Amino acid sequence: MAIELLTIGTELLLGNTVDTNSAEIGRALAAAGVPVLRRTSVADDPAAIREAALAALQRTGAVLATGGLGPTADDVTKKVIADLFGMRLTFRQEVWEALVARFARAGRVPPEKNREQAEVPEGGVILPNRWGTAPGLWLEGPQGLAILLPGVPAEMRGLLHHEVLPRLTPRAGGRVVRSRTVRTTGVPESALAERLDRVEAEVAPLSLAYLPGIEGVDLRLTAWNLAPEEADRLLAESAALLTGRAREWCYGEGDDDLAAVLLAEARRASLRLATAESCTGGGIGARLTGIPGSSDVFLGGVIAYHNEAKRSLLGVPGDLFATHGAVSEPVAAAMAAGAARRFGAELTISVTGIAGPDGGTPDKPVGLVYLGFSVRGKVTVHRHQFPGTREDVRGRAVQMALFRLLQLLRAGSSPAGATV
Amino acid sequence: MAIELLTIGTELLLGNTVDTNSAEIGRALAAAGVPVLRRTSVADDPAAIREAALAALQRTGAVLATGGLGPTADDVTKKVIADLFGMRLTFRQEVWEALVARFARAGRVPPEKNREQAEVPEGGVILPNRWGTAPGLWLEGPQGLAILLPGVPAEMRGLLHHEVLPRLTPRAGGRVVRSRTVRTTGVPESALAERLDRVEAEVAPLSLAYLPGIEGVDLRLTAWNLAPEEADRLLAESAALLTGRAREWCYGEGDDDLAAVLLAEARRASLRLATAESCTGGGIGARLTGIPGSSDVFLGGVIAYHNEAKRSLLGVPGDLFATHGAVSEPVAAAMAAGAARRFGAELTISVTGIAGPDGGTPDKPVGLVYLGFSVRGKVTVHRHQFPGTREDVRGRAVQMALFRLLQLLRAGSSPAGATV
Repeated sequence: MAIELLTIGTELLLGNTVDTNSAEIGRALAAAGVPVLRRTSVADDPAAIREAALAALQRTGAVLATGGLGPTADDVTKKVIADLFGMRLTFRQEVWEALVARFARAGRVPPEKNREQAEVPEGGVILPNRWGTAPGLWLEGPQGLAILLPGVPAEMRGLLHHEVLPRLTPRAGGRVVRSRTVRTTGVPESALAERLDRVEAEVAPLSLAYLPGIEGVDLRLTAWNLAPEEADRLLAESAALLTGRAREWCYGEGDDDLAAVLLAEARRASLRLATAESCTGGGIGARLTGIPGSSDVFLGGVIAYHNEAKRSLLGVPGDLFATHGAVSEPVAAAMAAGAARRFGAELTISVTGIAGPDGGTPDKPVGLVYLGFSVRGKVTVHRHQFPGTREDVRGRAVQMALFRLLQLLRAGSSPAGATV
Repeated sequence: MAIELLTIGTELLLGNTVDTNSAEIGRALAAAGVPVLRRTSVADDPAAIREAALAALQRTGAVLATGGLGPTADDVTKKVIADLFGMRLTFRQEVWEALVARFARAGRVPPEKNREQAEVPEGGVILPNRWGTAPGLWLEGPQGLAILLPGVPAEMRGLLHHEVLPRLTPRAGGRVVRSRTVRTTGVPESALAERLDRVEAEVAPLSLAYLPGIEGVDLRLTAWNLAPEEADRLLAESAALLTGRAREWCYGEGDDDLAAVLLAEARRASLRLATAESCTGGGIGARLTGIPGSSDVFLGGVIAYHNEAKRSLLGVPGDLFATHGAVSEPVAAAMAAGAARRFGAELTISVTGIAGPDGGTPDKPVGLVYLGFSVRGKVTVHRHQFPGTREDVRGRAVQMALFRLLQLLRAGSSPAGATV
């Protein structure tokens, strides 16, 4: 079985809304074994919706449509598709009551125009919407299968996973497209590829994609048209292979956040962390405190944007600025040591660099960043030259700082050759 | 004249790539007066591409296709569309030389397979690609108009604005769809709507959309199918009307960043700024230092996540924690005053709150945030209760903090009724 997507809404064609639903639906259906063969987007226009839905049904036999189920005049999807299936709309008391109850929980009464949302094509299956007011619909007839979902992402998502996939999966062809992602950082794509060498042959029949970004290089394995168990087994084996091969650069899988991994590692070792940031301006602190429960590890930090703050809050000796400049190894080291003293922290991260776009010189170009670390009193500094915009340089510096400290932690309390 | 979009790539249907190109192209074409009537996405499959392109040309007479112009085996767009137009592919030396020159600038030599990228449909117009290796193409024939662009967003964008729009605009129907956005913050959507009252009638024939988000409520005005000059005039008038009506909640238009607006206001008044953050963990500092040139206003900050840091770095009296708790008005006030002393800053922002998901109590629920400010020594505190996830609460707190300080600055050096 295969299916087509039909996303409905004038705002999609005008570009006022980015169609994120399609990607999410595409992934979920492919993983369930129902490939999406085509996506069509049309305006809130009955003739265009009818023509596109009919063409999809004739080509593929099944269509999943999103959008146009709301209570306003331009929400015409339900009428058009019901008509295509020769189904009459009838008012369903239980749908109306669920809608009234939903409004009541918010202390409100539904407007009269919402009554239309309780009209349902006769013979269609109602997919209860616990995330909003418009129920999903599942219509089958000689024309094929049409699934109608709201366009609001949270409602689409809830209905897709709780109502649509359980009904579609038994009809799936038994061949799925599934992916699994191994996350690496602290290494350029080219060096990672060199290390992994001819791993493509080893992970076959899975495909391997390198996805470089500000946070590192993600390695996406994809199983194409395999039985679900076979796909999952191969993905697990190959993910383990990549993780072992990428070793020290690997910090997790899927949505894992490097900040959370670092905090967990520090928590295990009962170590507490403080930061001293210049060019990242609080970005490391913000990443760490974005993780719930970070307060048992993270004590705080100093955003030492001006040199006077580096001096007075972190005790950086004033003569270092004159002799080495604020962006230098000695200043990064003094910031890291100063934060350790100031917060009584076993672990610290310091950052000083030139984020750009201005402020670069031939000696110290934009993108030059020194990252300092103190681990139980032992201070090390790494020099980096990051490419890209101000945002890129800052983002890469934050990620690299988290990664270097994780490496130091994993290497034990007396890190080996980490130097400038 | 109207057009259809055809986005090509198996990764789009599998959901590995979110199709952001479509929205960008849709906005640009609508603003130029060439409405997009439909979008179709198909896999890297010659038969599907041919069928979809032909249908679009028959329906609408013009199609803009993205993707499938690369040098690999699954990049088949050019061949398929050239065939549809009955055009033969011929090798063009000047295209090859431009490609060789591009590789040379990166110190490389193009692989042999890239030679195919220099093959161009005879009779087609080459759209030079300064942003990548695959040139765009403009094909016209009895079949209609086909524009082929690479799928890489930066390349698509460059070609769209520099090559496609200048050629399309003279053919546009003279009716455009254009938008303009007025940005507000610090006010709930309902209160803003009450203030604006029946402004929808005043901005007619423009439409008005409320777009609430973490950073505030954006007001998007749209001119539908008007002459370009008329659209721009009405948009300017109505944007001014909304700005005047939303007054103190309005901080800019379009992509304006509240942090940049605040920094500019402080710069004008020759005032310098420091921060003292607890639950936002450096997020305010990161926002401010994200703006190039922020260093002439922003001195630095303290991320006082633990109470001991609030005490030792900001001089918050230790007994306040016992009597009021860390999340309280007196602590926020002491943090703001402490940052002013510590950094010698005329302006400070302090934040202490409960971001969640844990740590809430009946008295102090998740989302409770105190924002403190010191303006030339005068300290004020605002209490807020923000809804949403940890990320939402922190994001809203950052934006509200920047907004409150902007209000205080605009109100002059002795702000009136800003209290708890």
